[in-house]
Amino acid sequence: MSISVHPLLGVGSVSPGDDLGTLIAAALAPIEPRLQPSDVLVVCQKIVSKAEGRVVDLATVTPGPQAVEFAKGHEKDAALVELALAEATEVLRMGSGHLITATGPGFICANAGIDRSNQNREGEVTLLPVDADASARRLRAALAERLGVELGVLVSDTFGRPWRLGQLDFAIGAAGLEVLDDHAGRADWRGRRLEHTLIAVADQLAAAAGLVMGKADGVPAALIRGYAYRAGNSGAATLVRPRDEDLFR
Amino acid sequence: MSISVHPLLGVGSVSPGDDLGTLIAAALAPIEPRLQPSDVLVVCQKIVSKAEGRVVDLATVTPGPQAVEFAKGHEKDAALVELALAEATEVLRMGSGHLITATGPGFICANAGIDRSNQNREGEVTLLPVDADASARRLRAALAERLGVELGVLVSDTFGRPWRLGQLDFAIGAAGLEVLDDHAGRADWRGRRLEHTLIAVADQLAAAAGLVMGKADGVPAALIRGYAYRAGNSGAATLVRPRDEDLFR
Repeated sequence: MSISVHPLLGVGSVSPGDDLGTLIAAALAPIEPRLQPSDVLVVCQKIVSKAEGRVVDLATVTPGPQAVEFAKGHEKDAALVELALAEATEVLRMGSGHLITATGPGFICANAGIDRSNQNREGEVTLLPVDADASARRLRAALAERLGVELGVLVSDTFGRPWRLGQLDFAIGAAGLEVLDDHAGRADWRGRRLEHTLIAVADQLAAAAGLVMGKADGVPAALIRGYAYRAGNSGAATLVRPRDEDLFR
Repeated sequence: MSISVHPLLGVGSVSPGDDLGTLIAAALAPIEPRLQPSDVLVVCQKIVSKAEGRVVDLATVTPGPQAVEFAKGHEKDAALVELALAEATEVLRMGSGHLITATGPGFICANAGIDRSNQNREGEVTLLPVDADASARRLRAALAERLGVELGVLVSDTFGRPWRLGQLDFAIGAAGLEVLDDHAGRADWRGRRLEHTLIAVADQLAAAAGLVMGKADGVPAALIRGYAYRAGNSGAATLVRPRDEDLFR
């Protein structure tokens, strides 16, 4: 079965208080009659955060001494560092210009996911949604109401990762589809039982969506068609490896 | 621009000495007239390793004391552990049933990438290709000769990762396309210069291919169409984060 990944055009600028369901439903209108429950909508974190008012003007932030000290010499904005420290549930690494934190349910990324690209106004930044799984569930319900179809919905963000260069889109919110697919017990092509095969489906889908959602292009969402996902609502928070099972924390 | 991801069916069983170019070219035949240089072929490591003879019968391996000790109590196969230790350039973690190693140009994964699923004979395992970038370049050249089109070619493997549960496909070999896309200097939609935006394109493509290449299905390759990759031959080895820049080794 082939899969297709379509950039969602025409969402336009999103501001605090905007109804994301209305904006996305309008952008989906050209293909509305053909929408299927098996379609997965991937929405970038930035427009979710903007609609939810998770926008901060750095000019309103007074950095504390730790942020000022770290920002100094690393061409960092001390106000952004201050915000990142406030958003972080844990600081994993802080040094050599890098601030790697856990945030939300335990997502690990640079600067607590705070980003200043594609903002509506100079000096503004977006924080991650407070609960991106809840954001995904709300958007799914809003789209079901407007379009009459219950899609799979993911909220994605672009993170770096250890060991490998480059950034990639990951799922930070999910609704309607299971984020992990456990192949344990299934057979391979020789009939041999597969062991330890737990596929991070939501991250695969987010990465695929990333191919059409380039940061420079201002494409804030994508529709993936033809992927037979497993229905469920465990949420992207379940993708966080429990701390005591993580060998690299 | 939309992207499509197609499972490559009909490759069949691959054995040491088989000519992978011939097998893949035959599987591509149904769409051959429509093949474009912008198409990216993603081939799973396993059939590359098999064709290159990187197959070992565990019965021929005599585990040393370290492998025996580790395997004991973790329901591990001591011969597989022995092989993984021999393939590893570095052992990052060894304990609680986990053996996380660097291998090849520095790819970090469990058991040096040795896997026993989808093998031709019980007791056999495949090792990673000696140089998966060279494998990708050879396959690209062979397909160009047979099909008259120079495709982008990736070799992918399914790895776990720290911090997040679940496995995902990553690029371990690449030919014809740049694995990283540097957005630094480009402008976002407001004209703001993007900083630190280096996208791991090859891993995005490998993850997208993974959506149609499930381990249980025996689909060993996929064709991704419509992605405007940047031509180049830096190779997937350049995705390895230099050791002295890695905060989590």
